Amino acid sequence: MKGNVIVGQSGGPTAAINSSLAGVYRTAKDRGARKVFGMLHGIQGLLEERYIDLSEHITNELDAELLKRTPAAYLGSCRYKLPEIHENMELYDKIFEILNKLEIEAFIYIGGNDSMDTIKKLSDYAIVKGHSQKFIGCPKTIDNDLALTDHTPGFGSAAKYIGTSVKEIIRDSFCLEYKNGLVTIIEIMGRNAGWLTGAAALAQGEDCQGPDMIYLPELTFDLGGFMKRIRALLAEKTSVVVAVSEGIRLEDGRYVCELGQTADFVDAFGHKQLTGTAAYLANYIAGEVGCKTRAIELSTLQRAASHCSSRVDILEAYQVGGAAVKAADEGDSGKMVVLNRLSDDPYQCGTEVKDVHKIANDERLVPRNWVNEEGTYVTDEFVTYVRPLIQGDVSPVMVDGIPRHLYKPGYLGQR
Amino acid sequence: MKGNVIVGQSGGPTAAINSSLAGVYRTAKDRGARKVFGMLHGIQGLLEERYIDLSEHITNELDAELLKRTPAAYLGSCRYKLPEIHENMELYDKIFEILNKLEIEAFIYIGGNDSMDTIKKLSDYAIVKGHSQKFIGCPKTIDNDLALTDHTPGFGSAAKYIGTSVKEIIRDSFCLEYKNGLVTIIEIMGRNAGWLTGAAALAQGEDCQGPDMIYLPELTFDLGGFMKRIRALLAEKTSVVVAVSEGIRLEDGRYVCELGQTADFVDAFGHKQLTGTAAYLANYIAGEVGCKTRAIELSTLQRAASHCSSRVDILEAYQVGGAAVKAADEGDSGKMVVLNRLSDDPYQCGTEVKDVHKIANDERLVPRNWVNEEGTYVTDEFVTYVRPLIQGDVSPVMVDGIPRHLYKPGYLGQR
Repeated sequence: MKGNVIVGQSGGPTAAINSSLAGVYRTAKDRGARKVFGMLHGIQGLLEERYIDLSEHITNELDAELLKRTPAAYLGSCRYKLPEIHENMELYDKIFEILNKLEIEAFIYIGGNDSMDTIKKLSDYAIVKGHSQKFIGCPKTIDNDLALTDHTPGFGSAAKYIGTSVKEIIRDSFCLEYKNGLVTIIEIMGRNAGWLTGAAALAQGEDCQGPDMIYLPELTFDLGGFMKRIRALLAEKTSVVVAVSEGIRLEDGRYVCELGQTADFVDAFGHKQLTGTAAYLANYIAGEVGCKTRAIELSTLQRAASHCSSRVDILEAYQVGGAAVKAADEGDSGKMVVLNRLSDDPYQCGTEVKDVHKIANDERLVPRNWVNEEGTYVTDEFVTYVRPLIQGDVSPVMVDGIPRHLYKPGYLGQR
Repeated sequence: MKGNVIVGQSGGPTAAINSSLAGVYRTAKDRGARKVFGMLHGIQGLLEERYIDLSEHITNELDAELLKRTPAAYLGSCRYKLPEIHENMELYDKIFEILNKLEIEAFIYIGGNDSMDTIKKLSDYAIVKGHSQKFIGCPKTIDNDLALTDHTPGFGSAAKYIGTSVKEIIRDSFCLEYKNGLVTIIEIMGRNAGWLTGAAALAQGEDCQGPDMIYLPELTFDLGGFMKRIRALLAEKTSVVVAVSEGIRLEDGRYVCELGQTADFVDAFGHKQLTGTAAYLANYIAGEVGCKTRAIELSTLQRAASHCSSRVDILEAYQVGGAAVKAADEGDSGKMVVLNRLSDDPYQCGTEVKDVHKIANDERLVPRNWVNEEGTYVTDEFVTYVRPLIQGDVSPVMVDGIPRHLYKPGYLGQR
C-alpha cells in the first residue's frame, strides 16, 4: 500500500475486538501503509475528526501482545447508524473530505450488523462518486448473529467465559441444602440470538451435569411448562440451575423482563425500578414453589473477560483484521471478511471475503433443529459447533497479581 | 495418629476451601490416619450420619490437584449453629456417639465465625465429658472477617477475581459515549466487612485509573454526598465506576438495598419484587442526573471463580488444612489455625494455632484509618495489605476448553 489506513471499532465491545485491531495494524504496516489511524468512537468520532495515530500507541511487539489481551474497544466504540445516502449527502461529503485529507487508502470497520451497514453505504457512495478508498468490514460480535460467516470473533471468548462461569455456579449451587430446594436462574446476553445462552451447555462434561435447562430467545417461552419442569426437577435434586436468554418472550410477545415492571411502581425516592429476566423468574419461582432462588446476571463480564479468553478466538480475530487489510490492498471494497469452517475435528478454518450487501442488517439465529423438541436444551450439534471455538488460552500478562492491559492515559473518556 | 480423622466444611463456599480439604486429607494420611471421613453438609449432615470415605474420592495425586482447583465445598456445606450445651445435651451425646463409632481421633472443621463456634462447643463438651477427640478449626471465608488471623483462605482468590473483573468492567465502560455520561455501580459481597469491596482498588495501576469511588459497609453511606461526587465526576469524565458493598446503610440504619422495596409492590403475577444495592443506586442516579447507568452484581462468581484463583491463597489454604491436622495430632483442641504475616515484601507468612474462644462470634472489620477521610476510597495501607494475597496463579486443568473439577457422581444433591 502507498497511502494510509484508518480503522474503527463499532457496536458492543468484546474480549477479542482489540486483537482484530492489532491484526489490522500489523498487516497494514507490513504492507507498507505509511500511517495507521484509529478513529475514536467509530464513525461518530471521525465526523468530529477525533482520531489517533496508532503507531504512537502500539510502539513495540509487547504493546501488540498486550492489545490482544485488552478487553473492550481500545479506540472506543459507537452505536451510530449512517443515514441513507439520499437523506444527507453533506454528511457523506464531510466523511470523504476527512478521508481525503488523511490520505486514506483503506477504511476498516470492526463491528456487527450496524457496522456492516456503514461499510455498505460508504463503499456505495465511493463508487457512485468515484472516490478511490476501499471499505472493508471486519466481523465482531459476541452475539454470533452475523450472516454468511461460520461464526464471529468475540463469540468464542464469551462462550468460554459463560461455560466456565456456569460450571462454577453449578458447583456452588450444590453446597448448601435448602428444605424446598434451590433454583438458580442465570441470565445471559443475546436479545434475539441464543448462541451465547446455548454456550451454557459447555459446562456439561464428565465432571459436571451442566445446567438443567437452557432457554433461547428464538423460541416462545412457556411459563406454565417451565414451572412444571422446575417442580419435577426439584423433586429429584436439591439444586436446579437454568440458563435463560435476556430476550425470552411469552407467546403474546412480551419480554419476561417486562413482566415485573409496572408503570406505577416507584421507590422511596420516586424512581421507577427495573428488573431483569433472571430476577423476575427467581422471584416468581420463590413465590409459587416456596423454594430458595437466586438470580445471576453474567452482565458485562461475559463480553469483557479477557482473563478467560479463547486462544482460537483471539487468533482468529487477529487473522480477520489482517485479512481485511489484505482485501482492501488487493482492491476489494464493500466486502466483509468471513470465517469459513473447513472441518470440526480437527478444527480448520480459513478466511474469505463476501459482499457486505448480503450481510448488513441480516441476523443469523440458532437453527430450530439445534434445540431439542421441548425447547429446553441445545442439541449435541450445537455443542459440536461451539466447542472448537473455545479451545486454548491466551495467558494474561500478570503484573502484581492482576492482568495488564494496553492503555495510554488521556486519549479516551475526558470531557 | 492411630485413629481416624473426620473433616467438614461449613458456611459460604469459596474457591479455596477445597484446597484446605486436600491439605487435611494429605496430612492426615501422611501422619498415619487409617481413614479420613468427610461429613456431607457439615455438622448438620453428620447428625444424620451422612459422610463419605475420602480415600474413595481422592484416589491419586491428580485427584488432589483437581480438588485444589475445584470451587465451592466438595463435601457440601451448611449454615447450622449448635445449640448451647445446656439447651440440648442429647444432641451433643448423639454427635459423640457417631464420632466414637467412627473411631474419630481428630475433628477438623473448615469455616468462618459460626463454624468456629461449633469447634468451641464441641471441644468444651469433650473436655467436660472426658472424650478424647481433638477439635481444630480451619479458617475459611471470602469475607476475611475472622479475628486473630492476618487473613483468611478464600479471601485472596475472591480479591483477585474482584480486582480483575472490576478492571475489565472499567475498560468496557469507556467504550461507548453517552450524552450525559455513564455511571456503573458494581455491587460486591460483604454485608458487614468491607475487605472484598476494598479489593476493587486492586484494579488501579499504571494501565487503569481504578474505580472512582469505593464505599465500604463499615461507614455510613451519605446519599447526598455520594450524588454530589457523582455529578462532579461526570463533569470531568464520560464514565464513572463505583464499587459498593452490598451492606452499605444510611444514617438511619436502613440498608440501601431496602430503599427500592415497598411492601405493596407486586408484579403482574402477584409477587413482590426485590432489588439490589447496585440496581437501586443505578436507578436513582438515572432518575436524578439523567445519565445512562448500569448495575453489575459480581454475585456468586466472586466466591466460586476457581479459574481466576490466587496461588498464594490456594497454597495457604492447603497449608492451613495440614496445620489443623498436625495440631490435633499433637494434642491441641479448641484451637483454630491462624495465618501470621511476618512481612509484606517479600511476603512471608506462617501458621500458628490460637484459642477458638477468642475467635468465635467475633468479627474483624476494615480499620477506619484504612479508608480515606471522606469515606470514598481505601488507603495505600489497605492495598499493601491485600496485594501479596492475590499473587500467582493456579493454572486450571483445561479439558476441551473448560476447567476440569474433581467430582464423583451421586454423593451430593440427590433427593
